[in-house]
Amino acid sequence: MTIALDGFGAEQGFDVLAEGARRAAADGIGVRVFGPQRSLGLDGAAGIEVVPTTEWIGNDDDPVQSVRERKAASVVRAAADVAGGNAAAMVSVGSTGATMAAATFGLRRLKGVQRPALAVRLPSPVKPVLFLDVGANVEVRSQHLVQFAFLGAAFSASVLDVGEPRVGLLTVGEEAGKGRTEIVEAHRILAAAPGINFAGNIEGGDLPEAKVDVVVTDGFTGNVALKVMEGAARTLAGAISDLAHSNVLAAAGGLLLKPALGGLRKEFDPDTTGGAILLGLRSIAIVGHGSAGPEGVANAVRLAARTAEVDAVGRTAALLREGHVERSALVGDESAPAGEEA
Amino acid sequence: MTIALDGFGAEQGFDVLAEGARRAAADGIGVRVFGPQRSLGLDGAAGIEVVPTTEWIGNDDDPVQSVRERKAASVVRAAADVAGGNAAAMVSVGSTGATMAAATFGLRRLKGVQRPALAVRLPSPVKPVLFLDVGANVEVRSQHLVQFAFLGAAFSASVLDVGEPRVGLLTVGEEAGKGRTEIVEAHRILAAAPGINFAGNIEGGDLPEAKVDVVVTDGFTGNVALKVMEGAARTLAGAISDLAHSNVLAAAGGLLLKPALGGLRKEFDPDTTGGAILLGLRSIAIVGHGSAGPEGVANAVRLAARTAEVDAVGRTAALLREGHVERSALVGDESAPAGEEA
Repeated sequence: MTIALDGFGAEQGFDVLAEGARRAAADGIGVRVFGPQRSLGLDGAAGIEVVPTTEWIGNDDDPVQSVRERKAASVVRAAADVAGGNAAAMVSVGSTGATMAAATFGLRRLKGVQRPALAVRLPSPVKPVLFLDVGANVEVRSQHLVQFAFLGAAFSASVLDVGEPRVGLLTVGEEAGKGRTEIVEAHRILAAAPGINFAGNIEGGDLPEAKVDVVVTDGFTGNVALKVMEGAARTLAGAISDLAHSNVLAAAGGLLLKPALGGLRKEFDPDTTGGAILLGLRSIAIVGHGSAGPEGVANAVRLAARTAEVDAVGRTAALLREGHVERSALVGDESAPAGEEA
Repeated sequence: MTIALDGFGAEQGFDVLAEGARRAAADGIGVRVFGPQRSLGLDGAAGIEVVPTTEWIGNDDDPVQSVRERKAASVVRAAADVAGGNAAAMVSVGSTGATMAAATFGLRRLKGVQRPALAVRLPSPVKPVLFLDVGANVEVRSQHLVQFAFLGAAFSASVLDVGEPRVGLLTVGEEAGKGRTEIVEAHRILAAAPGINFAGNIEGGDLPEAKVDVVVTDGFTGNVALKVMEGAARTLAGAISDLAHSNVLAAAGGLLLKPALGGLRKEFDPDTTGGAILLGLRSIAIVGHGSAGPEGVANAVRLAARTAEVDAVGRTAALLREGHVERSALVGDESAPAGEEA
């Protein structure tokens, strides 16, 4: 099992990225790193091959244009490596946009999928919830939401080991008629679709409470909701920390609570989950956090390896076939190349 | 100063609603309550007049249809009372949809406003942020977002005493081109508009951190984001409480922190802020929480009285004139009746 890792984009530097690769390799995962050989300092590291690469795409570059024009950039080469069969999945902690563009152009879509979607595991204290789309598609049609539901259910079942995952549609009310036009239509299609355990509409307040296993939304709403959750957790944690310094008794209380709070912090630590997962392509692409520490990088590579081990993509393709959602929802497979996964 | 109060819809019952009315009246606010005389038990209460009303619109009724057909319903009569000049503003803790419909049909729109918007003060530990629209308009066009910006800025300046409030547009990135089509267009209009302190785009993570004074979005995104914030705060508070019971040391810590946490809880208590504010009409309508306690009801009435005292509506009309946003953004005042506020 080999994973292609973008060797650029780690905010904490090449040392952190290299250490993450080493930790993943120590678990028996083969890692091919596309980055600067000297800066990475990985020569001779067991299980790791550095493919010397000097060009990369940063957060300030236009993702789509850069990926189209710069074939030598590390993230584009990582995608090509997967497409060429040298690696089973790709990982980058660099620009989210560039990683999505490189994967979408380089890895081709699964049959029946018009738009890949970006998914995250929400750090709920109750149980992890798979949430998608969190940013790949700012504007969607109903059939895209339906496809996201199938993609999320397949990933939840195959990689997260959830039996018959319950899938909810994020909107502004429980009733079937609530929400934007495309949501109401997606609800209608999903309610009648075989092969999926559709739990109906859920509201924003249900998201942190993990009432379902998979929550489906468009990439605009998902991005805003995810960032609001992260911001609320950060702000509240900060406020509690301030309170714990407000007087001597509270400070003593804060000290006594600290070990327990540490566990909660770990649950909310982005490094724990590995990163966002681009679903709908013929291989998985993992978008780690730019700020990831060594364990964050390692967990992103481990997550990629796990998706390949359990054949998440093959099982997703099977569910899409089984679901045989009404044709209107699944027509328009614009990639439709020879030898597609079907 | 008299406020029209819907006498139905309080989940905690008529006693709680009546006690809220008494507390507001004790502050010198006149309250006209449209509800059941015997159940309310307010006969002879100083500053309070009960207008006997037996019909009401519940959460299960279709709001628009019910408001159109049932002129004797309490929330419709409260709106008519304001329109007739007997009260300066209206308050309901009943169905949000029915209150919005009754106000929109009964109170008429301000000149230059096509759609009223529902605003809330977000309970941030940093400083309160006015957030709109949180549910009145599920689908919007760019000019609606521009109008929301002016409505929010005017309310923030006149009622919340913020000098030159900074207004941000909620979307998925800081750059002007990020987001749905209507957001990109609204950004362009606001960036060029006089009379408003436009701070540009903000992201979901900035919302709890209060980086601006007013945050503008559509009613779908706003509703989801608000409920995610409330849910995250509730879930995190629950998780911390669980931790504080996990062992003896943590329990001792929780006890010592409790007084300080109480202050934070009060900040996040919906009763503290009074409720949501429907902006864009010729009088203010306040939608309190259905679960409000006596202080929540009283604060909703106090908020309504304060908006009338400071002439929030007149100042909003002035700002809309001053802003004289490009015609494309403000044409289409569909109400345009004789004697409009202009």
